[in-house]
Amino acid sequence: MLIVGERINTSRPKVGPAVEARDASFIQDMALKQAQAGASMIDVNAGTLVNEEPEALVWLVNTVQEVVDVPLCIDSPNPVAIEAALKACRKKAMVSSVTAEKERYEKITPLVKEYGASIVALCMDESGVPDSAKDRIAIAERLVADLTRDGIPREDIYLDVMVRPVSVSARDGIEALETTRGIMQGIPGVHTICGLSNVSFGLPLRKLLNRAFLCILMGAGLDSAILDPLDREIMAAIYAAEALLGKDEFCMNYIAANRDGKLSV
Amino acid sequence: MLIVGERINTSRPKVGPAVEARDASFIQDMALKQAQAGASMIDVNAGTLVNEEPEALVWLVNTVQEVVDVPLCIDSPNPVAIEAALKACRKKAMVSSVTAEKERYEKITPLVKEYGASIVALCMDESGVPDSAKDRIAIAERLVADLTRDGIPREDIYLDVMVRPVSVSARDGIEALETTRGIMQGIPGVHTICGLSNVSFGLPLRKLLNRAFLCILMGAGLDSAILDPLDREIMAAIYAAEALLGKDEFCMNYIAANRDGKLSV
Repeated sequence: MLIVGERINTSRPKVGPAVEARDASFIQDMALKQAQAGASMIDVNAGTLVNEEPEALVWLVNTVQEVVDVPLCIDSPNPVAIEAALKACRKKAMVSSVTAEKERYEKITPLVKEYGASIVALCMDESGVPDSAKDRIAIAERLVADLTRDGIPREDIYLDVMVRPVSVSARDGIEALETTRGIMQGIPGVHTICGLSNVSFGLPLRKLLNRAFLCILMGAGLDSAILDPLDREIMAAIYAAEALLGKDEFCMNYIAANRDGKLSV
Repeated sequence: MLIVGERINTSRPKVGPAVEARDASFIQDMALKQAQAGASMIDVNAGTLVNEEPEALVWLVNTVQEVVDVPLCIDSPNPVAIEAALKACRKKAMVSSVTAEKERYEKITPLVKEYGASIVALCMDESGVPDSAKDRIAIAERLVADLTRDGIPREDIYLDVMVRPVSVSARDGIEALETTRGIMQGIPGVHTICGLSNVSFGLPLRKLLNRAFLCILMGAGLDSAILDPLDREIMAAIYAAEALLGKDEFCMNYIAANRDGKLSV
């Protein structure tokens, strides 16, 4: 499971002011804690700092790279910010995200290719996010055809299945589940990813819903997620699901995580 | 989700002696607690009392029916015990279980039909439990063809997907998952069921694994399970999974369960 640590995002209460003040130790502490908790990548997002986004993103990349070795996910819709950040990355990065919208696709894809990054591709187009899994999978197929034609290898494509709140529509969990299963069964070689916590928006005990949904999606083949690796219960659910899904031979990682006191229940 | 409460089983430490002593209040307390916790059915199993199994099973049926209104699952391979228990049942019962083994099938199926019960059918035959989902699904198809030919309606058939410990073989979780999905997608109108806790045998923090696996299987379509309804965390996972899978319109049950203090996390 590829875990993208989501905490370094200027839309979060303390992070925005810390980035504005260029408080390196605050950001580095957050990066270190996520890496220690098991993040495979660390997301950097300075989207709320509109005018200075490129500069802030480069500062984030350099600041995080000083203390951790894990690769970074450049989380921005802004091609100028993305390119500046990619230039600063020392390891193979991920870019989040393109869509099937023509303008966004045409500006971001060449950068992803030039810098050899992987890419998060959202299952949405000019009309927004389709309600049905069938329509999302059709967009996924088109995105994969376009991206591979434009030089991005399949193994570098992470399709975002578009998780939305079940408090708004009871079907939204099912559609994300069926989108995940349809992509993993029907489009060989690509990955699926999601922003998990959207599913529980507006409901009590969100962590209970988030971790149950992560297990459900992992059972459908989901192999990456953007989430908070400091949520010990969700990390415990990931260790459990990997053992259950045959991705942890002899349950060695599960048993080691338990021995190391990581499996909060 | 059909939840079969598993606690009244003479192989459990205090239950065997209680049944031998015909301690009605012990059994009735256990039945009441399971019903209050959300069991849709209550399993009765006196399998360890070999010589007196029929008499003990009838006593269990009568004793439980005095205090709860939920239907019973008669859990025995013994046709004599099954028939005696079915005669005593006031509501439509479930019989657990037949297999594709000829002798067992031919003795139990006529009783199920005669008494209008539902039936748990194990995906195994004379050679035991197949390792692969493909072979289990083939047995399921044969069982459903035979059972419907012999007068059991599809909606009364609960196919047990045969959960086995992932500590023994890393593939066993996946095979149960794929068996569940294959049956629910390929054999319309039937149900799937499992004995959940087998999956975690030999591993630490079994409850963590059990509830993650239940979410995974529910995502694949599992609609019933035999489990301990007094395990508050697994019941919380069921409320969460039903809300996520579109089986709880406006998340009303989830919100009510939270308001009633049932959602331990």
